[in-house]
Amino acid sequence: MREIPLIVSLDDHVIEPPHLWQRWLPSRHRAAGPRVERDGSTIQWIQGNQVFVKGGDGPATDWWVYEDVAWAHQMLNACAGYAPDEWWMGPISFEQMRPGCYDVAARLADMDLNGVEASLCFPTFPRFAGQLFAERHDKELALACVRAYNDWMVDEWAGESDGHLIPLCIVPLWDAELAAEEVRRNAGRGVRAVAFSELPGKVGLPTIHDPSGYWDPFFAACAATGTVVFMHIGSGSTWITSSPDAPPAVTGTLVFMTTAMALADWLFSGVLVRFPDLRICFAEGQIGWMPYLVERADKLWQKGDVWGGPNGRSPEPPSAYLRQIYGCVYDDEHGLASRDVVGIDHITFETDYPHQDSTWPDTRAAVERFAPLLSDDELRKVLRDNARALLDLGG
Amino acid sequence: MREIPLIVSLDDHVIEPPHLWQRWLPSRHRAAGPRVERDGSTIQWIQGNQVFVKGGDGPATDWWVYEDVAWAHQMLNACAGYAPDEWWMGPISFEQMRPGCYDVAARLADMDLNGVEASLCFPTFPRFAGQLFAERHDKELALACVRAYNDWMVDEWAGESDGHLIPLCIVPLWDAELAAEEVRRNAGRGVRAVAFSELPGKVGLPTIHDPSGYWDPFFAACAATGTVVFMHIGSGSTWITSSPDAPPAVTGTLVFMTTAMALADWLFSGVLVRFPDLRICFAEGQIGWMPYLVERADKLWQKGDVWGGPNGRSPEPPSAYLRQIYGCVYDDEHGLASRDVVGIDHITFETDYPHQDSTWPDTRAAVERFAPLLSDDELRKVLRDNARALLDLGG
Repeated sequence: MREIPLIVSLDDHVIEPPHLWQRWLPSRHRAAGPRVERDGSTIQWIQGNQVFVKGGDGPATDWWVYEDVAWAHQMLNACAGYAPDEWWMGPISFEQMRPGCYDVAARLADMDLNGVEASLCFPTFPRFAGQLFAERHDKELALACVRAYNDWMVDEWAGESDGHLIPLCIVPLWDAELAAEEVRRNAGRGVRAVAFSELPGKVGLPTIHDPSGYWDPFFAACAATGTVVFMHIGSGSTWITSSPDAPPAVTGTLVFMTTAMALADWLFSGVLVRFPDLRICFAEGQIGWMPYLVERADKLWQKGDVWGGPNGRSPEPPSAYLRQIYGCVYDDEHGLASRDVVGIDHITFETDYPHQDSTWPDTRAAVERFAPLLSDDELRKVLRDNARALLDLGG
Repeated sequence: MREIPLIVSLDDHVIEPPHLWQRWLPSRHRAAGPRVERDGSTIQWIQGNQVFVKGGDGPATDWWVYEDVAWAHQMLNACAGYAPDEWWMGPISFEQMRPGCYDVAARLADMDLNGVEASLCFPTFPRFAGQLFAERHDKELALACVRAYNDWMVDEWAGESDGHLIPLCIVPLWDAELAAEEVRRNAGRGVRAVAFSELPGKVGLPTIHDPSGYWDPFFAACAATGTVVFMHIGSGSTWITSSPDAPPAVTGTLVFMTTAMALADWLFSGVLVRFPDLRICFAEGQIGWMPYLVERADKLWQKGDVWGGPNGRSPEPPSAYLRQIYGCVYDDEHGLASRDVVGIDHITFETDYPHQDSTWPDTRAAVERFAPLLSDDELRKVLRDNARALLDLGG
């Protein structure tokens, strides 16, 4: 049996504990801030294609309630500890979850069980890039909620973990200057990772092609502070599927597509040209499709200006900018076999705890399946060294 | 210099000559059938994101006029003979086109110039799968138009080519029984290829997941007659892009995505299980992204029924059904380097004449770039033998 190094996972998820905003918001905002209620009057809320119904005839469960939102955690996003034949589609309450979903000590124990030394966790209720707050009416409250999330993330979730939980902050996406300020505030206390939307245009925000350079203050702050921009699949609040009656496996197979759209955006946006120190990392999109996409991008780039648009004609071919781009895999044998394209130093690893796609608690068995593709040095880079270098974690 | 075998291209395009429906429709339908007009009154027609304006202040050009449609050929789809710096976005008239776009003898000369022995051409005005006719009001006329197209395709376009132009027919997509009948009618005169939509649901038609098996009569007819189902990128009248302000290179890089959606559909639809003799071929989508997608599909399949839906839990893993699936490449080095996944016997080749993506007239130079990846036998299979075997062309 090959020795598997301790893992640094750059894509896990935290289920925010019910006390988060009630403890970390300034007291004047707490009454209106996000809180958890069990049942109550019927509220229906639609996000994307999903309809959430609070109370009424549905099963009793826990609801996040905040402004116009009533939202329940979905079982498949908090299913650690359940076998696939126990999964269900629909809400899950806190008491049905494994405590590692929301509790620091329990999480550390679950990581330990799985050979994971350190973990970067994306938000759940705020959505993968904090889009929830960008969509709310009261922006003063929303900004306070973003900052409260980050204070909790830094001081409680990461702060109580003895360095094992890596802080990932969110920003007020509706104001790039405020976002830049929040990046600097968090960088000042050691944070090196910020969540961003892979497809901001799909959330009603300017895209990274915006001719006025809407996002430039944010990107400049990230570049100046060494803060890495993390984009999770679905962080554009968009999932690609073929048709409404396609089985879930079709959508599940196609989850890489929004990341592919984002990668094409970044390669032809000019952002990586303007900010050569900026580094970005795509979470859960894996990498096996990147060699084809980047080859295609290079070939269109060679065809000249008709294809590039104002920012798209970069001085070097798109593939050159992979030096600023990192991928994240969990079981991508084709991607690892094709690692020369992305570059062995730019491939990171994830366990995706506690989502249905997670390899927990058998991540080492998953690693053993693809480990034969890699040398010991390469395996160590993918499982830990690249992540530690990217986020300046030392050793 | 390595010897390059004569090419059989499974994805080229015919610009329908102005006389097509006026010559091949029954006389009672000719007045209402598609015809070409130069200028005339202003008509605006929207297809997808593109607005076409006939007449008015625009440049004089040729317009296909039919029922509620006024439509001009787009320069980038008929740009053979123009250098990239001469390209323009917008309409092109017949007199501005290279005659090989629409004339049999001129096309054969252009193929000869490029080392192409045989070519399968997709429709242009009817769109890649004949969706135009499925969207029109008068279905009796539309059916006559489909049959007239096929009669012209078989007797004139292919019929006058001495076997060098391979017939590709279209079907009345709005009625699967009529479609099956049209497949059988054409198979009776030697046709072995039919165009279908990669994403019929996006054209307002039932998907291949339809629980009533809407398409089964059509698929059964194809399987019984050895007719191969060809699906071109964009034949779902849908293109994926990231945002409205993304440069054209982003959309151009992502053109494979609708084919990826279609492949996921087919792998989890059960159609290939129900019709083990059915063979399908994806045109212009290339193959370099398939290894990742198929690996991901297999892994979801292994997770069990929650992902499969009623038809999705096939007896064998999705990758097994690649035996019924063919890809088509033009310059896909990563795909060819990863050929073991799709299988060297299932990779075909295209020149995409007269579209902007075409390698014409330098296809042999394009082949020389990827030829080192392949043995002589493999190169011959990709460039010609696989296509000849798939379409039962002999030799």
